[in-house]
Amino acid sequence: MARWQPGARERLQAATIELVAEQGFEQTTVAEIASRAGLTERTFFRYFADKREVLFTGQDEFAAMFLDGIAAAPSDAEPLAAANHAVDVVAADFFPPEHRSYARQRQAIIDAHPGLRERELLKLAGLATAMAHALQERGAPPSTALLAAELAVTVFRVAFTRWAGDPDDRDLVAVLADVRVELGALTGAVTPP
Amino acid sequence: MARWQPGARERLQAATIELVAEQGFEQTTVAEIASRAGLTERTFFRYFADKREVLFTGQDEFAAMFLDGIAAAPSDAEPLAAANHAVDVVAADFFPPEHRSYARQRQAIIDAHPGLRERELLKLAGLATAMAHALQERGAPPSTALLAAELAVTVFRVAFTRWAGDPDDRDLVAVLADVRVELGALTGAVTPP
Repeated sequence: MARWQPGARERLQAATIELVAEQGFEQTTVAEIASRAGLTERTFFRYFADKREVLFTGQDEFAAMFLDGIAAAPSDAEPLAAANHAVDVVAADFFPPEHRSYARQRQAIIDAHPGLRERELLKLAGLATAMAHALQERGAPPSTALLAAELAVTVFRVAFTRWAGDPDDRDLVAVLADVRVELGALTGAVTPP
Repeated sequence: MARWQPGARERLQAATIELVAEQGFEQTTVAEIASRAGLTERTFFRYFADKREVLFTGQDEFAAMFLDGIAAAPSDAEPLAAANHAVDVVAADFFPPEHRSYARQRQAIIDAHPGLRERELLKLAGLATAMAHALQERGAPPSTALLAAELAVTVFRVAFTRWAGDPDDRDLVAVLADVRVELGALTGAVTPP
């Protein structure tokens, strides 16, 4: 038997999403996921440590993309512009329109399970801290770096929620742009220019 | 023996903070906390279910204050202004200058223990969701309500971190005002007016 199955990772992800949507996260076993994907349990464990990992795979790459995006921003970009640049790079690369359905179903599962939601929140909190460090390395003062990073992640979270929950076919980068315009309008309404 | 000990809650909180700072959270027992506070274990358990609870007591009142603050905002206040009003009410009532030392030590403990940090993050995430609902009840469209609530909580989190970590004696309401001005400058720099 070949040790590597073409597309096995994606088939296991799709099978997990399907089964969890049908019967819940707790009720779904690794054996069922492997079977639905037409693979063995042994193959499952070659890719993932457990069923939770299926939903959180790629996290390190995900976080690294934000940091790479900050590093790749124009050297004269202000802290928030650099953080926003990183968010846009991730939005375009990690969430293209064809991944919307998977991202949406995954999010519905996460929102329905407090334990998974917890892990997702921790991931995003760690992301803002890491981005703040990356902005400091570009010369931003620590307090500005943290505010810009937290703000960029907040905008990302709000835009992602809207994108995942909205029946429109607009892409995430466009939704991000909308949220930033609304943010400017909201803050402009209470902060004198 | 009297069932109620005057100041017992506060003495148990102070004893917990002291002991955890000295020897770590895991290593600190309820017996030690009670003893340091000059109380019995039985008295400890009359106030708190476990040592974690000591650090998270008053959470329901804390969340309720944000919602009351939104309800008490002027009826014509824009969503972000109403959310900011709530944050300012909580900052003034829950974090007066004389509580700064406790809040600061508590935060250092939370930041040093992933399990506690997790609980703190979940608390803040739940807060933004609850505030968004309260803003919707005042007539804000759902998407604006969520953005305003997330933004107000982000500002609160950044200002609180700065206040708790800064040796200055400025009060939290003043730090919040600074962060909002910086936020306006940051967003103004990337969003055309």
